[in-house]
Amino acid sequence: LTKRDVVRKIIGSLRLPRRDEGEGYANTNLALCKYWGKRDEELNLPATSSLSVSLTGFGSRTRVSVREGRDRVELNGKPVPPASAFARRLQDFLDLFRPEPSVGFVVQTENQMPTGAGLASSASGFASLVLALNDLFGWGLTGRELSILARLGSGSASRSVYDGFVIWHAGSSSDGMDSYAEPLSHRWPELRVGVLIVRAETKGIGSREGMRRTARSSPYYTSWLEKCRGDLDLLLGAIASRDFAVLGRVSESNALAMHAAALAAWPPVLYLRGASLGGVQKVWRLRGEGHPVYFSMDAGPNLKLLFLDRLSERIRAEFPGVRIVRPFPD
Amino acid sequence: LTKRDVVRKIIGSLRLPRRDEGEGYANTNLALCKYWGKRDEELNLPATSSLSVSLTGFGSRTRVSVREGRDRVELNGKPVPPASAFARRLQDFLDLFRPEPSVGFVVQTENQMPTGAGLASSASGFASLVLALNDLFGWGLTGRELSILARLGSGSASRSVYDGFVIWHAGSSSDGMDSYAEPLSHRWPELRVGVLIVRAETKGIGSREGMRRTARSSPYYTSWLEKCRGDLDLLLGAIASRDFAVLGRVSESNALAMHAAALAAWPPVLYLRGASLGGVQKVWRLRGEGHPVYFSMDAGPNLKLLFLDRLSERIRAEFPGVRIVRPFPD
Repeated sequence: LTKRDVVRKIIGSLRLPRRDEGEGYANTNLALCKYWGKRDEELNLPATSSLSVSLTGFGSRTRVSVREGRDRVELNGKPVPPASAFARRLQDFLDLFRPEPSVGFVVQTENQMPTGAGLASSASGFASLVLALNDLFGWGLTGRELSILARLGSGSASRSVYDGFVIWHAGSSSDGMDSYAEPLSHRWPELRVGVLIVRAETKGIGSREGMRRTARSSPYYTSWLEKCRGDLDLLLGAIASRDFAVLGRVSESNALAMHAAALAAWPPVLYLRGASLGGVQKVWRLRGEGHPVYFSMDAGPNLKLLFLDRLSERIRAEFPGVRIVRPFPD
Repeated sequence: LTKRDVVRKIIGSLRLPRRDEGEGYANTNLALCKYWGKRDEELNLPATSSLSVSLTGFGSRTRVSVREGRDRVELNGKPVPPASAFARRLQDFLDLFRPEPSVGFVVQTENQMPTGAGLASSASGFASLVLALNDLFGWGLTGRELSILARLGSGSASRSVYDGFVIWHAGSSSDGMDSYAEPLSHRWPELRVGVLIVRAETKGIGSREGMRRTARSSPYYTSWLEKCRGDLDLLLGAIASRDFAVLGRVSESNALAMHAAALAAWPPVLYLRGASLGGVQKVWRLRGEGHPVYFSMDAGPNLKLLFLDRLSERIRAEFPGVRIVRPFPD
């Protein structure tokens, strides 16, 4: 099965848009239980279910329209060279929705986050693009369908079509129609995510390649997937009972286990950087002093802190420059 | 079974020494296939066999004598406070060999390595102490017996009673009489080990505690032990056929997998430091440029480089301050 087959199932036949422009906004998300390993490379079907919290205010706003001719991509007001990896990945995705070969898309994306910060902007980027396409073409898709389409662009984008806590079901069908994200009804107003932007000294390995290497060569891959299944249950329980210590511990442990599974691959996949390690040690010191703060890390050097509102002042003092996100604004 | 039982099996009844002083020298060693996990905590019996290369010139010279009264320990010419963790660990070990309660030992150890460098001086320390005790008491023990006694002090010390490549058999008996080190007959004159001393910003977790946490809580522990069994065979093959690419790759992969298994424990066990990561990235860059250099790391921040003599000049240029060891001097 190809991405095109999935698009056909969801949208049917492609038509020209009725409107001039479509618009969409989506926040990026932080996976508390990570997506690291695929059961299908083409359709971005994950080996395990994952759980995230959307990072309010760290998102992408995308506007899209059509015109005759080649695609035109603009990121934060600047044209993206058509031959760049970014533009080509986008064009490949847009091919799925092109009603006629002569139709080009004009995509304008504004990232509402520190640019070049290595934050997973592909999650909010593809989610906002799918929302914008839905708006442009007037498909009137459900959240589940939007989530599936966003997944075809980037796995973690499937979770970014929602805010708050979001679960992405691994599913088991080969067409992936049962692999979509759903929001949890639980809110947690006191929850905070501190985003620490760390400049990487060297460019890391892309997450697609990192996952592939881990699955192929890490002796820990099978145990990693098992751990994810257990961690997901623990996290759902922690959210339902608002047990922050469990939420924090399991999120941190899950992130470290992901990095550990990747580190044991060959060639090794290492995302930790010197600058991130300083933050890690600081989190552990604070915990040692009795402050409930935990961290998570994705396939990049940035550290995300998890804590409750009452610790905000202390976190700001300890981590100058931290950006504090409220995933559940009033 | 206790350590005392093992000592009784090997030495029989304890007598006063005939000589005034005994002396021993042992090099520290670098495990290419790591010892990380015990099958018996009391006797330091390992869960898997391990393989090391001794680091010529990075060793300990120990002189020992007896006197009436309390033990006296001197490290690098300075008395060690009897209440310190170091002195108490030594006193506990010396208790095993005390012919009468009133007998005290005078132990003088000189470490021939950068002090405070976090190099595994317990390996060379306990090995040299056992050699010195054998000399003092005139036990006339075999290498195998010396290795078992050294193991009672520190697991990795069992390998330090020999030079060159050394295998430490895990064994399976509950008294550990089949868990001893043996030298390999293979030499590899061109092999070099570059020791990079890295100052740690924060003190790491001791290896005893690190192993314990890994065994108890890491989801990767079982796979780690399995990997070790496979890696050992690969390393023995690489040594027999002088295949440096395999020796380097398997050594680096084994070290990273050990650190990864520890990182996935809870509470997490992290030995990597920012300063070590810089060296890691440099090794990978050099390899990317076609230079066959690999690294290993133990439960500390220092990096050990593995390469062949013809790369020595390049290594010296890339890593100022590197100490280059020839494990097989002419």
